[in-house]
Amino acid sequence: MNLLILTDADIVTPNRFRITGPRHLHILSVLKPEVGDQLSIGILNGARGLGKIISINADETIIESVEMTAVAAPVLSVDLICAIPRPKILRKVLYVAAMFGVRSIHMVRTNRTEKSYLLSPLMEPSKQLPYLLEGMSQGEWTRLPVVEVHPLFRPFVEDMLPNLPGYAESPKLLADLVEGSHLYQIVPARLSSQLFLGIGPEGGWVDFERTLLREQGFTSFSLGSSNLRVEYALAAALAQLELLNSRPI
Amino acid sequence: MNLLILTDADIVTPNRFRITGPRHLHILSVLKPEVGDQLSIGILNGARGLGKIISINADETIIESVEMTAVAAPVLSVDLICAIPRPKILRKVLYVAAMFGVRSIHMVRTNRTEKSYLLSPLMEPSKQLPYLLEGMSQGEWTRLPVVEVHPLFRPFVEDMLPNLPGYAESPKLLADLVEGSHLYQIVPARLSSQLFLGIGPEGGWVDFERTLLREQGFTSFSLGSSNLRVEYALAAALAQLELLNSRPI
Repeated sequence: MNLLILTDADIVTPNRFRITGPRHLHILSVLKPEVGDQLSIGILNGARGLGKIISINADETIIESVEMTAVAAPVLSVDLICAIPRPKILRKVLYVAAMFGVRSIHMVRTNRTEKSYLLSPLMEPSKQLPYLLEGMSQGEWTRLPVVEVHPLFRPFVEDMLPNLPGYAESPKLLADLVEGSHLYQIVPARLSSQLFLGIGPEGGWVDFERTLLREQGFTSFSLGSSNLRVEYALAAALAQLELLNSRPI
Repeated sequence: MNLLILTDADIVTPNRFRITGPRHLHILSVLKPEVGDQLSIGILNGARGLGKIISINADETIIESVEMTAVAAPVLSVDLICAIPRPKILRKVLYVAAMFGVRSIHMVRTNRTEKSYLLSPLMEPSKQLPYLLEGMSQGEWTRLPVVEVHPLFRPFVEDMLPNLPGYAESPKLLADLVEGSHLYQIVPARLSSQLFLGIGPEGGWVDFERTLLREQGFTSFSLGSSNLRVEYALAAALAQLELLNSRPI
């Protein structure tokens, strides 16, 4: 746990927090702090700083926040368009997206999304939350990604997507096939502050989907010469975009 | 399964193979091919091509290889120096390294490697193999990464590492802290065909280790602004290196 994320439910007074449940048990059994020790903490969708241990026992950890400063979302604001994968992979996608500080995750049903995936408990925000929080804690971000589920591909891509904030002026990039152009060939200059990234399902997009996304302004790119499993393809794409964004102009 | 990897144990005649066990069950229950259908196959440390289904029943799949061509290791040959992580993460590290076609994996004990990790069955090559094969199958590579375990950090770094083939003339890059230079700042031109990549343990290298690796020619770089869990840090580093290697000279 790189960053202890605190939510409204933890607040006792504005600068005092009571931690119970799995986060408390992690602090108690793994971090094993003494009273007076400090941990990195972050307020959900808020500031970051240090939490000083006021007391800790079998049931709860009480901490006081000190040296809080506003954070810092990533420089590059990514809106992810992601084919709904099987639940086992979806948990990882949520974790990875949150770890990289992605701003929003649009999960869309594709041709290769099996009907049963839409019945997974993971379609519920309350079931997504633990994976998002775990990723944020690892990546050290406090902003919770917004997750939306879109059960119909065409209406989402044709009607909703183009109306998302910043859509017209932001790069729209589709991680696609092993073959194809690298990001260098299709992103000529430093990226703007916002972009849309599409990650396909296992087995890839079908032609209809690829065509529809291209009609809405998406450009395909290759992540490289290896065929990557979805959660690693997402990590690879986000890491490449961050590197690209650091290049000297 | 993007690529069915065939080993010596599968050979019936030079171009006929008998598949049993988990790979057969995957073919039978997931791919559900009919006689005459073709799958992508690769010979372990050998050629790639298609495998035509000759027969399939509850016990075995018989295939005949057609259109075999030599493959193709990745353009960039990566020798990985990796802190030995806890077994749960090590399985993923082996998978990810193999998925990206890494050439060798030197697993070294570091200060943050707990003693118990060295007692894991995963220290045995036979226990590593399934994760490597699964990664190769996903990434579509046929070359099996060479894995070596080094229980002593200093002798490995000071005596063995500098004597590895290509060490002197290859870039030596250490994925390190969130802070620090991006790859752009430290790799000025297109990479050579070989490089050494160091990936630290959870919690990072300790100063002694960092110093020793720098004395042996390693340069630290930052993967970006997120703190990544080990297996994703590895995927991010390999993806960034591949992107860097594709840049126009």
